[in-house]
Amino acid sequence: MKILAFGEVMMRLTPPEYKLIEQTTTVDLSFNGTGVNILSGLSHFGYQTSLLTQLPDNHVGKAAAGFVRKLGIDDSNIGYSGNHIGLYFLEMGYGNRPSEVTYLERLNSAFGVSTLADYDIEKIINEFDIIHICGITLSLGEGTREAATELAEKAHQSGKIVCFDFNFRPSLNKNHSHEWIKKQYERILPYCTVVFGGERDLKELLDFSGDTIEQLSQKFMEKYGVQYFSGSKRSKSNTGGHLSGFLHTSKGFSESPTYELKIFDRIGTGDAFAAGVITGIIEEWSATRTVNFAVCNAVLAHTTFGDSPLIEKDMVEKFMNNELNSVIR
Amino acid sequence: MKILAFGEVMMRLTPPEYKLIEQTTTVDLSFNGTGVNILSGLSHFGYQTSLLTQLPDNHVGKAAAGFVRKLGIDDSNIGYSGNHIGLYFLEMGYGNRPSEVTYLERLNSAFGVSTLADYDIEKIINEFDIIHICGITLSLGEGTREAATELAEKAHQSGKIVCFDFNFRPSLNKNHSHEWIKKQYERILPYCTVVFGGERDLKELLDFSGDTIEQLSQKFMEKYGVQYFSGSKRSKSNTGGHLSGFLHTSKGFSESPTYELKIFDRIGTGDAFAAGVITGIIEEWSATRTVNFAVCNAVLAHTTFGDSPLIEKDMVEKFMNNELNSVIR
Amino acid sequence: MKILAFGEVMMRLTPPEYKLIEQTTTVDLSFNGTGVNILSGLSHFGYQTSLLTQLPDNHVGKAAAGFVRKLGIDDSNIGYSGNHIGLYFLEMGYGNRPSEVTYLERLNSAFGVSTLADYDIEKIINEFDIIHICGITLSLGEGTREAATELAEKAHQSGKIVCFDFNFRPSLNKNHSHEWIKKQYERILPYCTVVFGGERDLKELLDFSGDTIEQLSQKFMEKYGVQYFSGSKRSKSNTGGHLSGFLHTSKGFSESPTYELKIFDRIGTGDAFAAGVITGIIEEWSATRTVNFAVCNAVLAHTTFGDSPLIEKDMVEKFMNNELNSVIR
Amino acid sequence: MKILAFGEVMMRLTPPEYKLIEQTTTVDLSFNGTGVNILSGLSHFGYQTSLLTQLPDNHVGKAAAGFVRKLGIDDSNIGYSGNHIGLYFLEMGYGNRPSEVTYLERLNSAFGVSTLADYDIEKIINEFDIIHICGITLSLGEGTREAATELAEKAHQSGKIVCFDFNFRPSLNKNHSHEWIKKQYERILPYCTVVFGGERDLKELLDFSGDTIEQLSQKFMEKYGVQYFSGSKRSKSNTGGHLSGFLHTSKGFSESPTYELKIFDRIGTGDAFAAGVITGIIEEWSATRTVNFAVCNAVLAHTTFGDSPLIEKDMVEKFMNNELNSVIR
Amino acid sequence: MKILAFGEVMMRLTPPEYKLIEQTTTVDLSFNGTGVNILSGLSHFGYQTSLLTQLPDNHVGKAAAGFVRKLGIDDSNIGYSGNHIGLYFLEMGYGNRPSEVTYLERLNSAFGVSTLADYDIEKIINEFDIIHICGITLSLGEGTREAATELAEKAHQSGKIVCFDFNFRPSLNKNHSHEWIKKQYERILPYCTVVFGGERDLKELLDFSGDTIEQLSQKFMEKYGVQYFSGSKRSKSNTGGHLSGFLHTSKGFSESPTYELKIFDRIGTGDAFAAGVITGIIEEWSATRTVNFAVCNAVLAHTTFGDSPLIEKDMVEKFMNNELNSVIR
Amino acid sequence: MKILAFGEVMMRLTPPEYKLIEQTTTVDLSFNGTGVNILSGLSHFGYQTSLLTQLPDNHVGKAAAGFVRKLGIDDSNIGYSGNHIGLYFLEMGYGNRPSEVTYLERLNSAFGVSTLADYDIEKIINEFDIIHICGITLSLGEGTREAATELAEKAHQSGKIVCFDFNFRPSLNKNHSHEWIKKQYERILPYCTVVFGGERDLKELLDFSGDTIEQLSQKFMEKYGVQYFSGSKRSKSNTGGHLSGFLHTSKGFSESPTYELKIFDRIGTGDAFAAGVITGIIEEWSATRTVNFAVCNAVLAHTTFGDSPLIEKDMVEKFMNNELNSVIR
Repeated sequence: MKILAFGEVMMRLTPPEYKLIEQTTTVDLSFNGTGVNILSGLSHFGYQTSLLTQLPDNHVGKAAAGFVRKLGIDDSNIGYSGNHIGLYFLEMGYGNRPSEVTYLERLNSAFGVSTLADYDIEKIINEFDIIHICGITLSLGEGTREAATELAEKAHQSGKIVCFDFNFRPSLNKNHSHEWIKKQYERILPYCTVVFGGERDLKELLDFSGDTIEQLSQKFMEKYGVQYFSGSKRSKSNTGGHLSGFLHTSKGFSESPTYELKIFDRIGTGDAFAAGVITGIIEEWSATRTVNFAVCNAVLAHTTFGDSPLIEKDMVEKFMNNELNSVIR
Repeated sequence: MKILAFGEVMMRLTPPEYKLIEQTTTVDLSFNGTGVNILSGLSHFGYQTSLLTQLPDNHVGKAAAGFVRKLGIDDSNIGYSGNHIGLYFLEMGYGNRPSEVTYLERLNSAFGVSTLADYDIEKIINEFDIIHICGITLSLGEGTREAATELAEKAHQSGKIVCFDFNFRPSLNKNHSHEWIKKQYERILPYCTVVFGGERDLKELLDFSGDTIEQLSQKFMEKYGVQYFSGSKRSKSNTGGHLSGFLHTSKGFSESPTYELKIFDRIGTGDAFAAGVITGIIEEWSATRTVNFAVCNAVLAHTTFGDSPLIEKDMVEKFMNNELNSVIR
Repeated sequence: MKILAFGEVMMRLTPPEYKLIEQTTTVDLSFNGTGVNILSGLSHFGYQTSLLTQLPDNHVGKAAAGFVRKLGIDDSNIGYSGNHIGLYFLEMGYGNRPSEVTYLERLNSAFGVSTLADYDIEKIINEFDIIHICGITLSLGEGTREAATELAEKAHQSGKIVCFDFNFRPSLNKNHSHEWIKKQYERILPYCTVVFGGERDLKELLDFSGDTIEQLSQKFMEKYGVQYFSGSKRSKSNTGGHLSGFLHTSKGFSESPTYELKIFDRIGTGDAFAAGVITGIIEEWSATRTVNFAVCNAVLAHTTFGDSPLIEKDMVEKFMNNELNSVIR
Repeated sequence: MKILAFGEVMMRLTPPEYKLIEQTTTVDLSFNGTGVNILSGLSHFGYQTSLLTQLPDNHVGKAAAGFVRKLGIDDSNIGYSGNHIGLYFLEMGYGNRPSEVTYLERLNSAFGVSTLADYDIEKIINEFDIIHICGITLSLGEGTREAATELAEKAHQSGKIVCFDFNFRPSLNKNHSHEWIKKQYERILPYCTVVFGGERDLKELLDFSGDTIEQLSQKFMEKYGVQYFSGSKRSKSNTGGHLSGFLHTSKGFSESPTYELKIFDRIGTGDAFAAGVITGIIEEWSATRTVNFAVCNAVLAHTTFGDSPLIEKDMVEKFMNNELNSVIR
Repeated sequence: MKILAFGEVMMRLTPPEYKLIEQTTTVDLSFNGTGVNILSGLSHFGYQTSLLTQLPDNHVGKAAAGFVRKLGIDDSNIGYSGNHIGLYFLEMGYGNRPSEVTYLERLNSAFGVSTLADYDIEKIINEFDIIHICGITLSLGEGTREAATELAEKAHQSGKIVCFDFNFRPSLNKNHSHEWIKKQYERILPYCTVVFGGERDLKELLDFSGDTIEQLSQKFMEKYGVQYFSGSKRSKSNTGGHLSGFLHTSKGFSESPTYELKIFDRIGTGDAFAAGVITGIIEEWSATRTVNFAVCNAVLAHTTFGDSPLIEKDMVEKFMNNELNSVIR
Repeated sequence: MKILAFGEVMMRLTPPEYKLIEQTTTVDLSFNGTGVNILSGLSHFGYQTSLLTQLPDNHVGKAAAGFVRKLGIDDSNIGYSGNHIGLYFLEMGYGNRPSEVTYLERLNSAFGVSTLADYDIEKIINEFDIIHICGITLSLGEGTREAATELAEKAHQSGKIVCFDFNFRPSLNKNHSHEWIKKQYERILPYCTVVFGGERDLKELLDFSGDTIEQLSQKFMEKYGVQYFSGSKRSKSNTGGHLSGFLHTSKGFSESPTYELKIFDRIGTGDAFAAGVITGIIEEWSATRTVNFAVCNAVLAHTTFGDSPLIEKDMVEKFMNNELNSVIR
């Protein structure tokens, strides 16, 4: 099974030791994004992965590609053009203080202004078994939206597994009406096999109604022919909160146990969950095992630095089975 | 409303990553002090602030002034003389291990040896509405004591709001009798509008007696004509402890809820509380809202690096109203 | 004498220890720009300075303002809007390897999209004696170009000293014809008292001809009524190269001695030269002394980290007079 | 009382800020080992200590000796030969994620290939009152095993206190049968006065049976003539777990209270416990006080960076007596 | 043209800011080796490269592979076994003080103990056009020597270009006679197309005699049927020294100009030279152009951190043509 | 030969990467002083050394002692009292920009206020063969002056070698007349065997006259019965300058060759010279060899970070003999 993800690479700048931006003269530099994160998780689980994106045609773009390769992701489908990459600062939270993300210019990035013509859709569909498309592509530009939709449609027609996450960001859609946004999602959803989202996506974005997430997802999956709908749910507290997940398949609705969180780096943990679900689908695990594995991967992803999941399958399994000691030698 | 604080700037040297001094070859360098901290808090809440102090007339003094400016505090009332600045090492605690402060020479600093003649009291009183005076000035030298008392008296006479905190440090008063020390506080207190302190200050320093902090502060406020008496109270535990605060005004005694702490940097959190109370006074909030805001600011100040509060008003409000998620985008 | 500069603040990201971007996971974070740099130099020489610009209305913008204040520059004329700031990576050169600057998105910054309406030109002209305008403002956007030109015109009419530097960047003008660009410079030049530039600007941009810089600048000053034209000239070698400067005034053409360079941080050294020339104008020094001081300031600026000059007047004087030992105690 | 330890010095490489090896381009460098750790603890309690070992005869060995001296340990019994030192990476855990130790080559270190001839056993026994021998020496090489056993025997014959810890590491004994390994321990145990270990050592390594640790240790102490048997016991949880200790002497079996842990650096905490027990023996404290002090030292050792205990006696006592505030000034 | 290199990956630990090991508590961590370095250079010139080696089967080995991928080198021919990797400390020199390399255990690394059976020689020869073999493989172990020789022989038989560098290290050959060592080189040389070395290799290792490097290499190339013999020559001085190179082909002997060095990181610069020569062979440049390009790449490699060349072809060309300014924007 | 030095330990705070204090939020922390530096040099040459001083009785004093031990210097003659240690910032120079030292409070340090009663002079004289006394002790306080003079007198009477350096600092003697200062030096000089100084010391401080350093030192040695007078002489230039040394003994006046400097860390290099001269005296080398060795040690000390010399004898010898390559493996 070879997995490709279509999505944005962003540069993350993180002040050290829980400092705020105004307190620091050095920042940690890394590159990530939903696609990168999911592929990093899958790559650390042993699968072959590749990223489809555009990076700026300069030293920053080359460094970003090197970072992606280091995560174990193939970079041969990356194109280079323009001079910008989306970027954000992460001020890491501590205890009662939440993490804060400050985005700088994002829409004008090499990826944000890329178009269908920048991507060789045919070639990609032939090479890969699973295609992941990040929902943010629908909100960046006309070009990324068309590319994402075309990629989903063609992959679906070729019988490939198409994964999609809502990742709806109101801040990127200030100039669009609810109806317009809804329509963009409705165009792509019929081609999707696996969808990641939550109650808010179904209710507020797609106007479904229902009392429970199970009811909502049932309607959603029927309407768009989606085979897997999955997501995680968190509570928050001073010392971390709790996390659980659900996975709805044609065979029914499964929920994971709830795990206590201790949070070091909050960002990218939803992508760790998604990587876990895709792993279960690849391995043809039961829904119960799949969602439990996925949420355990997400719980552990809260404890590592950076957006991209790095934990190996073996440690996730041991955590699931409560077999971890305080030190592994 | 323009606020000026009269107080010492100290240099803080902090080993990284919870290391002890003996373990490190690098230390974080910052500058702070009660006055700096309170003004930093007020500046981050949007008020105009200025520091009255003396710094050494060398590159260290200039760097300290730059640091103060960076916090948003006006430095045009800072004088430069001598070559020393008080300094201390902070070994940051973790869990069961407390933070440890090691002071090096402090009395001989440019500020410690400054005198009334170094400060243009008239000009300052004309320009500012609120004057904060740190109680440590009473224990440093004859000159700082006189300057503090004169400043309080003149400001009081001009109808300005005078804020004062006890900040009594036994280690700086080893050569003075209880009576002598008490007398210094008694000289300045009649000029003070707002006083920050606690049960121990009233009982042990000023020899009041009473069963509750409310009774004690009632007697204290009456005796010296103080209009606001306020302080915070902490319990300690392995994972952080709890914090609450009180504010006694002419209208009565208010207490905040108790908040659970998760402590990253313990130092300066009392000053965050004071900045919160002063904000309530400026904004003419109710005592209840004021003390709640102040203690929330202090709780959040435990989670940021450095002595000086940096949290904006909006986040304190959201924390008060329990509206914070684990990440703000 | 109070000096204001109108110009862009940029974020600079610098890999440590001469590393390339692809080699590092941490970068040094600072903020600068022609205006910031010149004001930093003047502020370190003891003058009152203020920056006129727009910064993003988020934590990055606030941190940038703090950085500017730390340099000793007043930030009360800075406005906040939008979410972007121009930024670049600097890979510091060593010996035979040049420094490399990689710009990310710059045109869409809060400053780049600002317009005349964002600035209170009247107020500024009343408060300041010298107004510096960076030539890059002509190439960013319609709005910054109009604001710059209006500011120059009004200041000129009020008898203020208007400083201007060419700072022509072909990369920002790819879509404009030579004639169009030339016209933008020609609109502003008649209002300028002091202009910084070089042979290439006069020949290639303004189409002057002449054998020497003296001849060229004579024609240039006459045509536009410029009173001071000044610039520096560098040669390059493996170990640093050499630097000299010229200053053309109504009294004639002066050249500085040539100094050997040892380069640590190449960026911003032209701005250090400009700060030196402005200092000579403020102090009414002879042209000879002025240009020598300016080039010495630029030579020393090659030896400090960061774009912004930080050297004090006393050290520049000692260097000019060859009075510096290898260590100052 | 002068204490000598015979054991391996290892180099520890630790990625910063909870990063994994693959995420970092810098690592913290330190040197430690069971002997170093126990002596560091004792040295910080005010006792004279010395390390008996072999280090590589190069800059790394010299640096390791400097590190040992810095901890307050005499290095005059260290020899230099060969070019290797055992080393490992520590990826520090966080919350649900355990710490991970990755060993590189260890057996071929200067210490691992050292032999009896490298050590002046007579001299050492004359100079020191307490000799600590790390059980890992039995698993490294023929030479270290013989040296350890000879040292124990001779010290025992001279009436010195011989301390020994099991420290059994299956990974170093893959090529040996259970019987062979057991025999090595059985050769040295009769010479030991104080032994550190746990239930698993007695049951799985020495084939004792019993329901409780008290029963097991009773049999063990009788069989080998051991006077003190001691160890600690931990539970694990997301936020740290709990720790308690026991000390079995000729006068009976004592257990400490159980303390809640908050873990920053898990490694070397067992050695902090041992240093505490040896302190109690030196000071002739009661077993109850001794084991309580030892476990408190271990609890605090979880909160400091590095393997080697650094906490002073006074702080351990205050923690035992619940007298610590959140900050010590 | 696809290039594969067979060679050792080593871990390099570098104290920061020119410190010695004994002065630092942090070290920079990187991975390199002759093969890695040459491929890094070729990869940055735009060629497809792959490394053939063995890495330890643990987190360190995985991190090393990630580092190699980041350099742009394919890692799909890397195997994982054992637990050790060769490593060294580099204390970076400055001016009169040379750089110092301290090797820890190297022979027992996963690569050092690997054997012919670990490598799929057939597959490799089919896939690649140029095979580079590092001469150090002849001195590590019986297994690496056999693998190297077999690889050279088979590649030669298949008409592939075989590159080889002498890289003779006396310290790795203390137990072997001159005759024995010479014989190992003589076994592999007949299969080599391109050889990198110098006067000392030909005279002292292979017992050739001659007055000039041209004479020596002529004899050498004839005897073993080598088509290209190339090397660089350095002088040393306080400020860096000078570098030149030669390339002897069937068409004659060419020498490059001599370039002045300014040295930041001395290690790996010979590999940069080799990468340059191989580039000339791939591009079928003249010998003159090739050797000039190669030595320019080596000169620039002295100015970047780390062993592995990172400079792009365009910058090397500009340096050759003296077109570099002190800053590239 | 065992050497003891009596002198001050100071804390040095150094901004990283050539930054100025105002630019940094981290500083490098080290401890040094003339005595520490000379002993560090001698310790790295293989001699037994010990420091006689007072350090503050807190974590900073303990860390300083650890730092001294790490350099290979015995700390058993160090006492602990008070709470202060002298400290300074070093802003490292680059090229044309000199290094700048900013001292904070120094006179009130534990050492500065120590008195004769704090030191066990008898014990020290019995144990050591060579006693070094730093001339700064004459300028700190009444107590250090008396202790230094008494130590010199008693050591002289016991036939020990007494070394002394002028180290005259005008900034520490602002309140004393020339005559008073001269008298302090004249009291101690008759007890000194080896004196380090220069032309300025003899002319300006002691009022000798003469045309050459040889003439001056001849008179000086005769007057005070000094057996060795030695010093170094530097010129300065942008790229480092040059250094040479002289040594005047009863057998005549010797001068070293002049060496070109490349300066990384200028501080402490005079102490490296002194350590070299003392080594020659211990080893009974000729004056020519001694002064050459000493100046070579000083030249190399310019290339290492920190005040304290760290170079081993072997490397100094190789440098003297021009045997160093650009890398030592």
